[in-house]
Amino acid sequence: MKAGFVSDVAAGTRISEVVAAIGGRIASRALAPGDRLPSIRRFAASMGVSPSTVVEAYDRLAAEGLIRAQRGSGFYVSNAGLHPLKLAEAETPKARAVDPFWVSRQSLDADAAVLKPGCGWLPADWMPDEALRRAIRSLARSDGDLLSYYGSTRGSQALRRLLLGRLAEEGIEAGPDHLMLTSSGTQALDLICRFLLRPGDTVLIDDPCYFNFQALLKAHQVTVVGVPYTPSGPDVATFETVLNAVRPRLYITNSAIHNPTGATLSPQVAHRLLNAAAGGETILVEDDIFADFEPEPSTRLAALDGLDRVIRIGSFSKTLSASARCGYIAARPDWIEGLVDLQIATNFGGPSPMSSEIIAHMLAGGGYRKHMEELRRKLVRVRRETADRLSRLGIEPWLSPRGGFYLWCRLPEGVDSGEVAQAAVAEGVVLAPGNVFSVSQNATGFMRFNVAHMLEPRVYDVLAAVLRR
Amino acid sequence: MKAGFVSDVAAGTRISEVVAAIGGRIASRALAPGDRLPSIRRFAASMGVSPSTVVEAYDRLAAEGLIRAQRGSGFYVSNAGLHPLKLAEAETPKARAVDPFWVSRQSLDADAAVLKPGCGWLPADWMPDEALRRAIRSLARSDGDLLSYYGSTRGSQALRRLLLGRLAEEGIEAGPDHLMLTSSGTQALDLICRFLLRPGDTVLIDDPCYFNFQALLKAHQVTVVGVPYTPSGPDVATFETVLNAVRPRLYITNSAIHNPTGATLSPQVAHRLLNAAAGGETILVEDDIFADFEPEPSTRLAALDGLDRVIRIGSFSKTLSASARCGYIAARPDWIEGLVDLQIATNFGGPSPMSSEIIAHMLAGGGYRKHMEELRRKLVRVRRETADRLSRLGIEPWLSPRGGFYLWCRLPEGVDSGEVAQAAVAEGVVLAPGNVFSVSQNATGFMRFNVAHMLEPRVYDVLAAVLRR
Repeated sequence: MKAGFVSDVAAGTRISEVVAAIGGRIASRALAPGDRLPSIRRFAASMGVSPSTVVEAYDRLAAEGLIRAQRGSGFYVSNAGLHPLKLAEAETPKARAVDPFWVSRQSLDADAAVLKPGCGWLPADWMPDEALRRAIRSLARSDGDLLSYYGSTRGSQALRRLLLGRLAEEGIEAGPDHLMLTSSGTQALDLICRFLLRPGDTVLIDDPCYFNFQALLKAHQVTVVGVPYTPSGPDVATFETVLNAVRPRLYITNSAIHNPTGATLSPQVAHRLLNAAAGGETILVEDDIFADFEPEPSTRLAALDGLDRVIRIGSFSKTLSASARCGYIAARPDWIEGLVDLQIATNFGGPSPMSSEIIAHMLAGGGYRKHMEELRRKLVRVRRETADRLSRLGIEPWLSPRGGFYLWCRLPEGVDSGEVAQAAVAEGVVLAPGNVFSVSQNATGFMRFNVAHMLEPRVYDVLAAVLRR
Repeated sequence: MKAGFVSDVAAGTRISEVVAAIGGRIASRALAPGDRLPSIRRFAASMGVSPSTVVEAYDRLAAEGLIRAQRGSGFYVSNAGLHPLKLAEAETPKARAVDPFWVSRQSLDADAAVLKPGCGWLPADWMPDEALRRAIRSLARSDGDLLSYYGSTRGSQALRRLLLGRLAEEGIEAGPDHLMLTSSGTQALDLICRFLLRPGDTVLIDDPCYFNFQALLKAHQVTVVGVPYTPSGPDVATFETVLNAVRPRLYITNSAIHNPTGATLSPQVAHRLLNAAAGGETILVEDDIFADFEPEPSTRLAALDGLDRVIRIGSFSKTLSASARCGYIAARPDWIEGLVDLQIATNFGGPSPMSSEIIAHMLAGGGYRKHMEELRRKLVRVRRETADRLSRLGIEPWLSPRGGFYLWCRLPEGVDSGEVAQAAVAEGVVLAPGNVFSVSQNATGFMRFNVAHMLEPRVYDVLAAVLRR
């Protein structure tokens, strides 16, 4: 996993930097439609990169339609009028390249007959269905104001109170000023990016990391740099080097049960990350969405740091219901103030007060702890069974996670996980191939499996058939 | 309302352009922290504006903390490290200037004892409480998948089908490819702005218009130009002039029961707006949130144009429940595709499937039409009563709206509505003063009243007392 990462990351980063530099000039209209781009040789010299890096970058910009090549006379800014923001690699969903959007769309829009070991959620019958229905019935009897109004700008007080209690248990001293609710965990991260990033900034992510981080950062038109992820967290030496070299504005990570690897941040690595970031401008965003799947709590950046340069986000989609749609941000009070304004401007408020009420109802009782204990017990068994069955196909976990529902696995030598995913989807099985998680695109031989969706024998039959090709 | 608008708009626009030009260079790091800004004289010449315009613009940038003046040596880009996006005028909510955020926060976060004629929603006891509770009880019995999963990328099929039927009734031929659900009406507009705008673009809005349009556009760092609004829509001559002069990317409006004026777009004006935009690059966004408050349907841009260069958005917050949080976008299929990707990247999906189900349940029965008929009848009476009572205080409606719950009123000569709002909030009454709706800031003498919150005699007592000062 690690060999070659750093040099590949560096090359990919240089190309991304050129793309971002030109893209930024087009976005800010410093380069207007019809303008000629700098010559490859001249631009390479001015950026201190090789001409081939610039060629690669111009090709990417041309593929995105931002510039066009004119035979014999160089590259020009396109003048096709409006340039809507293009995020996915291909236009039609069916012909889509296997990029982060491919996995999202295939998983979200697949009909019920499709098997989805590539998806990021538990099957409905693993979720606390009875508790959820009880919470909804209780909602039907609640206050009329709650059912009619937008709700307060920071979201349900009941749910915020419960969350503050949970933060305190983790050793994070936070008051009401440190917390706000959002429409989802993803929206929480999106608000933070809008608040702290400007086009052209650099953001550090784990390589591999949750694929939608990359999709989201693409929407923010920032340069993304990956740090190789090890079984105890990001590679600290690379983290320190990159921090000094590119001064990223944000580092986004999962500390507990990292997506997709299932790894856990060690106390030593956590401590060194915070020290490396101290004094600089880098803010650390800790997405704690899988926290409650841990058998016992591990080290958290937010707990070590105390919400100074760490922002904590989370949601309830993995443990209670993804249908309710509710997330949260815990951060410095002055940032929460600004983020609340931003949420008013862009969503006129936070999550549905009805959704927050349902989540608060489910978290408040003792049933939640029991539900999670049961889930964790079940997942220990299913992770082991899945690993055994995959092993028979020559597919081996990179590590044995302490919790959660993902196994990050190495496919047999020479197998391309993107091709496996394309072939499997034709057989009604949605998989999550390695490269959608990897900014350096060097996880071709990896695949993330959601063990809760690996109980159907047909998944293994399709995998075996596809691997045989 | 109209006199002086065009010249004021032009002056305000020039200052905004200079602010946007400098802000864009700082955002793109073309001007780095510590860099000296161009001299006022030189920059005025290069932008073709007067030195006083540049002085005004630099002062605004300094007030926002982006640049700082150094005595005797000019202006420099601030180097305070991170510059989080600052939207509101003042830091602490209590000391806030009366800007769009002031009204939002005062209305959303006020406790139940506060009276809110400045808010943008109906009292809970005007809303279909029983139907809402029935819909929630029905949700408690619905499919487990619906209660647990994220839902499809375009949102609930049941609700989209109902919306397509309603679009067809309006004469808008739209298929499933033209429609997607969003977390809210505001989020619908935000997605469109992210999709079609780049920092530095120009956007046209009505003057006055819904105050949160301005807050939202500020988050997008675009230049905003206002077109004076007349009783039959935007002033067409100005619209045409501005379209040619500044080539805006978007024009955002409410056609039916315009917020805050209550005016209705006439067929002639609609036709001329579309003709003016034809052939250019301007896209028209029609926010139809108050549609169902009309006694009978008026002309819609989307119906005349057929979702070619018009995008329709809407939500159910004013008619059914703001707590459910659900909006929609109807647009060209290729744009919907891109907007769906953007919604995946930034929110991992649309509205809560539970919320959409509740809304679909309420829209499906015959009860909705009856509820709206009753609301409209009630509002006719309450609008008239409110106008009479305000008239006794020398407060006169600008026009008599065909429907809805707003009255846009002129205060007695010489009264500053911002001062009235500040004084009234101290007495427990939240008002919506004219200038929060006006990009040119020339609605000082106007106030928007929500008639459904004007039944308490205390509102008039406070108004009378404040006006007497």
